[in-house]
Amino acid sequence: MSAQPRLLEVRKNVLKQNDVIARALRERFRAQEIFVVSLVSSPGAGKTAFLERTLTLLRPQYRVAALVGDLATENDAVRLARSQAPVKQITTGTLCHLEAAMVENALAGWEVGELDFLFIENVGNLVCPSSYDLGEDLRLVLLSVTEGEDKPLKYPTIFNSADVAVITKMDLAETVEFDEEAVKANIQAVRPGMRHFAVSAKTGAGMNGYLQFLIARLGELMQRTTV
Amino acid sequence: MSAQPRLLEVRKNVLKQNDVIARALRERFRAQEIFVVSLVSSPGAGKTAFLERTLTLLRPQYRVAALVGDLATENDAVRLARSQAPVKQITTGTLCHLEAAMVENALAGWEVGELDFLFIENVGNLVCPSSYDLGEDLRLVLLSVTEGEDKPLKYPTIFNSADVAVITKMDLAETVEFDEEAVKANIQAVRPGMRHFAVSAKTGAGMNGYLQFLIARLGELMQRTTV
Repeated sequence: MSAQPRLLEVRKNVLKQNDVIARALRERFRAQEIFVVSLVSSPGAGKTAFLERTLTLLRPQYRVAALVGDLATENDAVRLARSQAPVKQITTGTLCHLEAAMVENALAGWEVGELDFLFIENVGNLVCPSSYDLGEDLRLVLLSVTEGEDKPLKYPTIFNSADVAVITKMDLAETVEFDEEAVKANIQAVRPGMRHFAVSAKTGAGMNGYLQFLIARLGELMQRTTV
Repeated sequence: MSAQPRLLEVRKNVLKQNDVIARALRERFRAQEIFVVSLVSSPGAGKTAFLERTLTLLRPQYRVAALVGDLATENDAVRLARSQAPVKQITTGTLCHLEAAMVENALAGWEVGELDFLFIENVGNLVCPSSYDLGEDLRLVLLSVTEGEDKPLKYPTIFNSADVAVITKMDLAETVEFDEEAVKANIQAVRPGMRHFAVSAKTGAGMNGYLQFLIARLGELMQRTTV
């Protein structure tokens, strides 16, 4: 594998450039008092359903918007638009992750300064997105009850790059004999102290605790910037 | 993103090198009359459970073995070993796909020539594995009923790189209101004529049709090489 070291070196340059853009984005979000949340997970873990529910529940009281990344379709933007929140699709082609520059481009022309929350749904992938900072305040890693309890152990990098874990599709937990204690232990093994929420976007169970957490974090951000 | 073209160029070299090794592997498998099946899917689609069932059902009449790729753990090899078939784990570190050279290395010291079927379970990822030929005769793309019917449209490259689609976790189809017709239409939209099997590794439903298909393909291979 003689080409490997050179590949890694070029990747490092791409990442460094990404970090510069991400830092600028973060400063801009901070100055505008926008709390930015990104979502990563494997394909089919329920990111879009969870985000649609999040937008719908927050929208009556907060100004929310979403960017959604996908390889090929605009399906997710169409689904999220049902929440009535402003949504933009980022199509990545064959690229398995979003990059900060894509977020920057997608925001051009948007009155982002008027938002309270901006959500960024990454491409469905448990590997590629882990190294790309998008300037977010909080990164959520989603894991559905149907995926198996061992995922944190098998994809430790993405769990380490995230701040909070969200266990989705809890309405199916009993049917698939989901072992929440095992998942909690596996999350703690990979990322000690990591907080998690267990939710069902379908029934709404657990959504309140998670939303209160987001709202508290927005409050902290506002306090920090106004001091 | 000025670094992008250079990154693509280096990737091309890595791919070219991979193709050379994959071609040599394929010639070797052909000469030894081994039918090689690789499995790709998103994390948690049920590759390991499906493969364990496949190995267990084939083993009484055929000589089978498996290689299984994962970023970090050897859990899958441990699970697959329950089938009593020889299994080797390939740990990829941070790499989101298997490469032909990893397969070649993993086979060193194995009496591969005595096998009828070799299965290669790729890292759980719907993007990265698509461009890497592993020398296999048949590539299966797995899609579980809990992932949503739109996955073929959202990950067209991996569906195009695969030969046959396997819909897994059919025992959950009713619970999640899975729309098989919609998935079939989406598969056909992306890869017209693609064959699919709908199975449950848990109940065994649909496994027989899929195994008969594999056995017929092994028969064709033996016929081709002995003529």
